[in-house]
Amino acid sequence: METPVKILLDRKREGCELPSSDIHDLIAAYTRGEVPDYQMAAFAMAVCCNGMTGAETLALTEAMRDSGDKMDWSDVSRPTADKHSTGGVGDKLSLIIQPLAASCGVAVPSLTGRGLGLTGGTADTLESIPGYNASLTLADFKKVVASCGCSMTVQTAEIAPADKKLYALRDVTGTVPSIPLIVASILSKKLAEGAETLVFDVKCGRGAFMKTREQAVALANALVSGAKGAGRKASALVTSMDEPLGFAVGNALEVKESIDVLKGEGRHPADIIELSVEFAARMVALSKGTALDVARKECHDNLKNGKAYAVFAEMVKLHGGNLAEFERIYAEGGGASSVEVLAPVSGFILDIDAETVARAAFNLGAGRAKTDDAIDMSSGVLLSVVHGDRVEKGQPLAKLFAKDRSALLDVEAKSLAEAFVISEEFPSVRRLIIEEIQ
Amino acid sequence: METPVKILLDRKREGCELPSSDIHDLIAAYTRGEVPDYQMAAFAMAVCCNGMTGAETLALTEAMRDSGDKMDWSDVSRPTADKHSTGGVGDKLSLIIQPLAASCGVAVPSLTGRGLGLTGGTADTLESIPGYNASLTLADFKKVVASCGCSMTVQTAEIAPADKKLYALRDVTGTVPSIPLIVASILSKKLAEGAETLVFDVKCGRGAFMKTREQAVALANALVSGAKGAGRKASALVTSMDEPLGFAVGNALEVKESIDVLKGEGRHPADIIELSVEFAARMVALSKGTALDVARKECHDNLKNGKAYAVFAEMVKLHGGNLAEFERIYAEGGGASSVEVLAPVSGFILDIDAETVARAAFNLGAGRAKTDDAIDMSSGVLLSVVHGDRVEKGQPLAKLFAKDRSALLDVEAKSLAEAFVISEEFPSVRRLIIEEIQ
Repeated sequence: METPVKILLDRKREGCELPSSDIHDLIAAYTRGEVPDYQMAAFAMAVCCNGMTGAETLALTEAMRDSGDKMDWSDVSRPTADKHSTGGVGDKLSLIIQPLAASCGVAVPSLTGRGLGLTGGTADTLESIPGYNASLTLADFKKVVASCGCSMTVQTAEIAPADKKLYALRDVTGTVPSIPLIVASILSKKLAEGAETLVFDVKCGRGAFMKTREQAVALANALVSGAKGAGRKASALVTSMDEPLGFAVGNALEVKESIDVLKGEGRHPADIIELSVEFAARMVALSKGTALDVARKECHDNLKNGKAYAVFAEMVKLHGGNLAEFERIYAEGGGASSVEVLAPVSGFILDIDAETVARAAFNLGAGRAKTDDAIDMSSGVLLSVVHGDRVEKGQPLAKLFAKDRSALLDVEAKSLAEAFVISEEFPSVRRLIIEEIQ
Repeated sequence: METPVKILLDRKREGCELPSSDIHDLIAAYTRGEVPDYQMAAFAMAVCCNGMTGAETLALTEAMRDSGDKMDWSDVSRPTADKHSTGGVGDKLSLIIQPLAASCGVAVPSLTGRGLGLTGGTADTLESIPGYNASLTLADFKKVVASCGCSMTVQTAEIAPADKKLYALRDVTGTVPSIPLIVASILSKKLAEGAETLVFDVKCGRGAFMKTREQAVALANALVSGAKGAGRKASALVTSMDEPLGFAVGNALEVKESIDVLKGEGRHPADIIELSVEFAARMVALSKGTALDVARKECHDNLKNGKAYAVFAEMVKLHGGNLAEFERIYAEGGGASSVEVLAPVSGFILDIDAETVARAAFNLGAGRAKTDDAIDMSSGVLLSVVHGDRVEKGQPLAKLFAKDRSALLDVEAKSLAEAFVISEEFPSVRRLIIEEIQ
């Protein structure tokens, strides 16, 4: 390294801006194992405390992108786009948005993650489909995208290895909540993945990582300006995550709900449909250069006419998944026991606390606390009501499912009952999109 | 640990005050090797960026003190006191102050350090006396103090091992310059050493670690309130370190100058005598409960009547040192070659830059860059003039000495010449004591 790490640490501690070349050198040396974890931990804490300028954040992002393989889609004839969500309760939007955008002529190469903590990851969710292989090689990933227009698989070790190493360190050194570090982590992988257009769903509220609107807007701005700085088209929506999205929270339950939305069957989760269309339409409009209204109409049409579902079904097949088998198993609940939560009073649903719902699903086995924990695909929470619904005393509010931990059902049902606020007061309209950043 | 380290890191990152018990647990676990360096590095950086309250600093200090042995002087009939200096160029004050205070009836158990960087440590300096053992066991250290009233030896591994471990980590993670961490490092050792009275010399200026008065006063305040918080009597003087102290910079050169002062021989370095008396008098007055004026007079007397020198000579003997042999060797310069720097113009000495002088001495072999570097005892700089002196063109300003690196003498002489500002302007009086903190 040109500049010794100690000097970089001194400068960052003093709040000075580091030159891009120094940041590139630091990340390259860290990836090669030449900078010890204790120096990198001090660096991460200094960034948490003193922040980073836009130029520093971009340098960190690009250095992490450059630590591994970068995918090239120039041989795919369609424009490429991807959506990233910061994660929320019941957030199965990717399962709908990615095939929906692909059905409108966009190629969607989507490297995704496994879940840790209360909310699951898209890769885990998809693996509730028997046979679905969410661990494709990058070569097979390319083939699936080329063939059906979209693929969702776990990012491999070749993509941004510096991020993997740094994230593991941040996780144990109290250095996760820093916008420049979060941006570099998210963006480095998305830039390496190579999609030309990036649309971000920054969740905000009790069930999200970003609790306040200020934090969420700051992250959304940083993501969009970072992506643009790296030469991509980008936009972000800050969306509400105080209440769960849709009815289902839990792996197979969320796949089932997504299939229903894609097929136009079952209940109508208005929040999921609205957000899916808004995000997919932005991917289409930005990457194809069409008007947002036109893209929005095409998305609505393709949800209704089955084209989005056809892409989804084809993608699942190419990943080795068996949808018929999935539907057969989970028509009966996948072998899970269940218990209902009933309304203690009559009234309107004023609020459903996302975090309480997520915790119940997690405790029943739908998530993992450690990276090697097993997930129970059939467990989770299926809401019977959403914000604004009218219920009568004794009607069901939700159903809890658990297979391996069914002894916990009654305890969790009691906790879950606390999530609902029911009142004679007429509920306010739930505003899903809080802010747009372009 | 009651509270997981990750939670402590989160809190410190957010700027919250940590409970004392959590800080004690953290340091104890770190000392046992149960907290990895990367977590401790993140903690140190969070402290650098967000600071610590007085209560937190005291808890950190006491936790580090409690990581090893604590000395007990209750069987010594005299009151105990020690002086600590943050280190400066030509700062041989300890060699004079400790025997001077001891000659006034105070027991002075003084655990000291080796030098690193530009300025040497007291232990190194003393080892220029043939036979002087600066690595006594704690048992022998006690014996010497009991016998002659003072002892200066390197602190052993049993004293505040947490400080040793943490300092090594701070040194490579850019987390040295933090007042709470500096206070805990200095005080933990002094508290374990056990003296009832602690007097601090916080150096301030170009040749000191603390460059500004604000920084130095903040450190002095934190040291005094920490020491008092831990039940000791304490005071501090913030003293000027823009120009070197006395004439000599370099190990044997400084011992020689100290002996001259203690014997009342040779040239009269007014700055050294003033500061030696002020610090020793405070040690005596605080620990014996006498008036400062009375203590000051006793110190002046004991410098003149040879009592202070007698304690020094006895201490050196008890450490195995041979003063006669020292005087014999260094009367001739200890085998070093030398070269003079001459005044390029006539005028008054307006300024002598301490850092330039220190760098010349260091480059000639008087200091060490790494802990296992050897020191050349005879090399260094001997000033011929001090602030305010009148010189005529061609008169000597300083003499440089080097043994192993004598080829560098001419180069360093050229650099050293830059340290002097000579002008016809009448010089202002040099103010040594900037502020007193009680």
